[in-house]
Amino acid sequence: MRRFIITASFLSFTVLSNAQAKKLSGFNDNSATQQFAAEEKFDGYLKADDVREFIKDMSAHPHHVGSPGGKAVADYIYDKFKNWGYDVQVAQYFVLFPTPKTRLLEMTSPVKFKAGLAEKAFPEDATSNQTSEQLPTYNCWSPDGDVTGELVFVNYGLPQDYEYLERLGINVKGKIVIAKYGHSWRGIKPKVAQEHGAIGCIIYSDPKNDGYYEGDVYPKGAFKNEYGVQRGSVMDMPIYPGDPLTPGYASTKEAKRLARNEAPNLLKIPVLPISYRDAEPLLRALQGPVAPESWRGALPFTYHIGPGKSIVHLKLEFNWDTKTLNNIIAKMPGSEWPDEWVIRGNHHDAWVNGAGDPLSGQAAMLEEAKAVSELAKTGWKPKRTLVYCAWDGEEPSLMGSTEWAEDHAAELQQKAVVYINSDGNGRGFLGVGGSHALEPFMNEVARDVTDPETGISILERRREVNIVAAAKSERLKKDMLENKTISIEALGSGSDYSAFLQHLGIPTFDLGFGGEDPGGEYHSIYDSYDNYRRFKDPSFIYGVVLAKTAGRMALRMANAEKLPFDFKSLYKTLNGYVKEVMALADQMRETTEIENTLIKNKYYEHTTDTAEKLLPPSRKDEVPYLNFSSLQNAMTTLEKSTHSLSDALYKTTLEEAKQDDVNKELYRAEQKLLSDKGLPRRGWYKHAIYAPGFYTGYGVKTLPGIREAIEQRNWKEAQEQIETDAEIIKNFSGYLDGIANQLGK
Amino acid sequence: MRRFIITASFLSFTVLSNAQAKKLSGFNDNSATQQFAAEEKFDGYLKADDVREFIKDMSAHPHHVGSPGGKAVADYIYDKFKNWGYDVQVAQYFVLFPTPKTRLLEMTSPVKFKAGLAEKAFPEDATSNQTSEQLPTYNCWSPDGDVTGELVFVNYGLPQDYEYLERLGINVKGKIVIAKYGHSWRGIKPKVAQEHGAIGCIIYSDPKNDGYYEGDVYPKGAFKNEYGVQRGSVMDMPIYPGDPLTPGYASTKEAKRLARNEAPNLLKIPVLPISYRDAEPLLRALQGPVAPESWRGALPFTYHIGPGKSIVHLKLEFNWDTKTLNNIIAKMPGSEWPDEWVIRGNHHDAWVNGAGDPLSGQAAMLEEAKAVSELAKTGWKPKRTLVYCAWDGEEPSLMGSTEWAEDHAAELQQKAVVYINSDGNGRGFLGVGGSHALEPFMNEVARDVTDPETGISILERRREVNIVAAAKSERLKKDMLENKTISIEALGSGSDYSAFLQHLGIPTFDLGFGGEDPGGEYHSIYDSYDNYRRFKDPSFIYGVVLAKTAGRMALRMANAEKLPFDFKSLYKTLNGYVKEVMALADQMRETTEIENTLIKNKYYEHTTDTAEKLLPPSRKDEVPYLNFSSLQNAMTTLEKSTHSLSDALYKTTLEEAKQDDVNKELYRAEQKLLSDKGLPRRGWYKHAIYAPGFYTGYGVKTLPGIREAIEQRNWKEAQEQIETDAEIIKNFSGYLDGIANQLGK
Repeated sequence: MRRFIITASFLSFTVLSNAQAKKLSGFNDNSATQQFAAEEKFDGYLKADDVREFIKDMSAHPHHVGSPGGKAVADYIYDKFKNWGYDVQVAQYFVLFPTPKTRLLEMTSPVKFKAGLAEKAFPEDATSNQTSEQLPTYNCWSPDGDVTGELVFVNYGLPQDYEYLERLGINVKGKIVIAKYGHSWRGIKPKVAQEHGAIGCIIYSDPKNDGYYEGDVYPKGAFKNEYGVQRGSVMDMPIYPGDPLTPGYASTKEAKRLARNEAPNLLKIPVLPISYRDAEPLLRALQGPVAPESWRGALPFTYHIGPGKSIVHLKLEFNWDTKTLNNIIAKMPGSEWPDEWVIRGNHHDAWVNGAGDPLSGQAAMLEEAKAVSELAKTGWKPKRTLVYCAWDGEEPSLMGSTEWAEDHAAELQQKAVVYINSDGNGRGFLGVGGSHALEPFMNEVARDVTDPETGISILERRREVNIVAAAKSERLKKDMLENKTISIEALGSGSDYSAFLQHLGIPTFDLGFGGEDPGGEYHSIYDSYDNYRRFKDPSFIYGVVLAKTAGRMALRMANAEKLPFDFKSLYKTLNGYVKEVMALADQMRETTEIENTLIKNKYYEHTTDTAEKLLPPSRKDEVPYLNFSSLQNAMTTLEKSTHSLSDALYKTTLEEAKQDDVNKELYRAEQKLLSDKGLPRRGWYKHAIYAPGFYTGYGVKTLPGIREAIEQRNWKEAQEQIETDAEIIKNFSGYLDGIANQLGK
Repeated sequence: MRRFIITASFLSFTVLSNAQAKKLSGFNDNSATQQFAAEEKFDGYLKADDVREFIKDMSAHPHHVGSPGGKAVADYIYDKFKNWGYDVQVAQYFVLFPTPKTRLLEMTSPVKFKAGLAEKAFPEDATSNQTSEQLPTYNCWSPDGDVTGELVFVNYGLPQDYEYLERLGINVKGKIVIAKYGHSWRGIKPKVAQEHGAIGCIIYSDPKNDGYYEGDVYPKGAFKNEYGVQRGSVMDMPIYPGDPLTPGYASTKEAKRLARNEAPNLLKIPVLPISYRDAEPLLRALQGPVAPESWRGALPFTYHIGPGKSIVHLKLEFNWDTKTLNNIIAKMPGSEWPDEWVIRGNHHDAWVNGAGDPLSGQAAMLEEAKAVSELAKTGWKPKRTLVYCAWDGEEPSLMGSTEWAEDHAAELQQKAVVYINSDGNGRGFLGVGGSHALEPFMNEVARDVTDPETGISILERRREVNIVAAAKSERLKKDMLENKTISIEALGSGSDYSAFLQHLGIPTFDLGFGGEDPGGEYHSIYDSYDNYRRFKDPSFIYGVVLAKTAGRMALRMANAEKLPFDFKSLYKTLNGYVKEVMALADQMRETTEIENTLIKNKYYEHTTDTAEKLLPPSRKDEVPYLNFSSLQNAMTTLEKSTHSLSDALYKTTLEEAKQDDVNKELYRAEQKLLSDKGLPRRGWYKHAIYAPGFYTGYGVKTLPGIREAIEQRNWKEAQEQIETDAEIIKNFSGYLDGIANQLGK
């Protein structure tokens, strides 16, 4: 890997020689030169060996919430920041965190089988034998339960899977379901099972998804072996994340708490994750219809759905303890605008050793913070305050970040310029999502970081990956080749940005590298240092690349004279979403009409193999024409407002104090996209544009109020949400006009 | 299944009550009434129990080419026709037919393994234990060979698979390849392996394709168990079928024969089919790169490509004997036009017991012939001669039909009105391919046959199956719902129609039922009566439906006053093909341009995981603009000619003798679509519109000269073929104009 490091250094030198000619949004020519020089120094302080050492040190023991290992990692991080000269605090919260007491899964019929529920230690993996420190394999937030019932295989356990079961005449009421991991956030599976009356839920990792079907298994290769189990949360986080007993406010020592059975985001049915070694006998014994093609995995037998003679018994008990979260918050005060915060975060808690998730990201953030402190020693100062946050309790439910954000909500909405998140990181390509008004800014950052494997910019590599992927699927159009920028993704959930973006309206990024680091270690004991150094980022150079990228983002946002928000970019993206939801309604109308015609004329009865006993789908209500005019008119207004503001920002040079007033209005603009009431039935999520899907969990739904109402065929609510969002967008335009007017004065 | 029979009878009664009002192309009102009445009687003679008995009798023993069982089946068929009053002849030919003498497959490294190469008998399958009469598992036309080499997994063994191997730097020269069955006719796999320098080829049945991945395995279910092997021919039939030693002429006793090593359609490398039980140790031992997603099957390990330490030894020896083919040819002379032949055919030889392939089709043809003979006893006569052909030697290389057609080429081109082929048959939906001038005729036939499972017509059921399939893949357009007809497929190869259609230009159909009869018995010992009655067509009613359908086709073609050719329909279909090949060239031009841009700019180097060691694809030559104008002009002419002829045919009523001259010209028209030289490098195939693909085997290539030249990037030949086909189409138009002029006189 030495070759790459040499290439990278050479290229950053080349870049610098052209620095004066290169545009840097938010900076004038003079300050841009200074900024580039600072970034060059910053890059020079970043060492892959540090990243390696941080990951190795922090992953030496399991360090989940409330564990001795967790406290040790928090202390380690605290000490680092302290040593580097930061103003460090431990922000503690006191949260519910269940851990397993009893775990029993057995099949009593047609053959007897008791699941092992244990991951095996291997000599090739030095920490895999720390059994006494490891959390057993479990899904956090499963209730206690002792259930016995017939077993039914439900594919990924999503709503459309139950529609298919209905066509087969199979009802899961009173039964235990077994679902595959994948295709949704895991918490959706037991939630949908519960909605359909199941009394228990087993989730297993099929070897097709991240086991031998994908590649050689650990420790020979990176993929999941027969023992590997994915732990993880099954809280209904699409309702709200954080401590389930303190919705919307901080779980301080004295906070009022809900009773556990009052928490609307906690499941009522027991759920347990298992390995494919444990799943195989259960699935093999199933009778009933053969599973359709898209349901089948890579185990060597015919997948049947059940039910039949298969009876399973699932018994789970947990310790429902309150644990202390230790968020480490480290500040470097801004020299000019100390009350404007550029916040950078990554969690430190893991399910077990967590070398990849989260330590690879945490180590990169620490290395970034170290380099910033070195830079500061040379006399350089951030103009805005830098806030580094190492979160605790992310794995159970984004608890550390959520409780802190709820605790400091008002202050954050005043001070937070941007929140930049990372999490697990690996070898490969830039992945970045966030607030679309910062898409051009992100492109500029990515332009200036060199990929160590190829010597081209991480921007160009990401762009080429998109193009090659499109070429493979033959979706490539020539205009894709002509576009030299990349889009950033909309954010759903799955890491610590949720409270900042979706609850508080803080401009947000989430970023990381990957795509050349596949494997099956996720949330298992095999997410270890030994695994990471062999399969994820052997030279640890992508930890440095992440530090360079997130560091540039932080340093530029900290020191830009004009904050580089570009609301034209937001308009363009949002307009795409508006067109999508309109097309979605049209497409559903056409599909529904055709499908109902087929059903009415018995096409399904006529064409389904009589031996299959598959009922026709149910007729669906027709899709009315929704009135999108208010939304369309709001978008017309927004287009004008964003163009006027851009022009005004481009043309005007203000005196410093006035510019800072404008900056404050710019970074607070995203808050105008929040609605007071939040989304229907989940008011914690207030952002009108971005939310995790109610039935996807991690996956984003853009314009979620409108989109999900259409998807759920709730036409009345869809129309209401159109009006709500139109009003929000209109007000947002008015707010932007206000800034433009101020500039015009 | 009784319910279905009742429904069917009821409906055919309903249909008849409206018979007079119903159009029947080629018949006037009066003769249509007679025809419908005859068809009603005909239907009445058809019995599912006969079909059952025929299948059971003929599948009682293995009956491959040259076997005692084969002779017995030929005699059985001969006797039936004789008893039913047909004029029966045995048309014998003397052909090469290799059978195995030595079969050895072993792995010598990294672990020792010797393949079992045997299918297991099961008590549930009464004929599966007839080991001494069964042909062992082998690929017919493999040469003798004794080779040892490294093993390489080549996916389906198609040209694009070798392109991928080249990107991995893997060359199969001097190595033995192992390929999966599927995605092409089996003979393509060793042919392409040989082209790439391999010294041997193993073909195995992956459980993903027709084994446990698809459903429960035999004898519990219908799918391939671990012992099942697909026998079959690997002659290079896309060059020519039939006896390889007598290309283009009949293999009579005294015919001059090529030496075996002169036959251009015989392989040079040994090839052997194996079960997944035998393939598993070979594949499991492979090293080298992990196979890409689309290459992986359902065996429970990571698929690697090799090569590595895996060494295999393959030794094969065959008896290269000459065997006698017994084609049974049964005629019922026409009362008005005895020199016009309506030919109906289905083979009788099998690889083993062949209950499904070919006896389910053979039994339906026999039942049809029986009913026709019953009808004849009532005084009804066919106006044209009916010729029933039970072919021998189809499995090795369509030998019986090919040698007979070559033997009677001139006579057939004078007399053959149509050739109607069938082969294996099962429960489900109509599948039909053939000459597109008869597409409207086919729709009328399908309109008048009732599906026994649903009570709707087989036309409507096929149409609805197409629509529901399109709805599943979201390709459905409303106009598909508005179209009340079905298209017939273009024919490639794989059954006995090839010589008639593609060598002689006889109007042709191939039809059968299926889609509700999946399984893995194809060409194995498990294609037995016990299998068929459990999984394929338990009530044998689809044998009756095939007899009703093919019977109607034969009876209507035999008795129509005006032969129901509709060249407007051919024009419409052909015009679609012309647009396809033009679009193909355009699409390849665009794809090549983009792909070359990606390659030139190193997008592949930049985006491919460096750990994968995958080279970029090779640059391809640019696609020139071809001159399609002659073809387009020929199509304009054809459109006019076909419309004029249709008008003239519709308006004119001729005296009988003159009408018959026109009829002769109509059924001989398809011969005008032949080229003298035939296709480049395979002149046996003379049809300008339909041919089996050189690299697909069974799969059709329409406008094959042009399409394959473009696909193979042979631009000079593509242009030549455009001119050739334009000339053919122009001449064809002139020929049709000649008929129209005659009508106008």
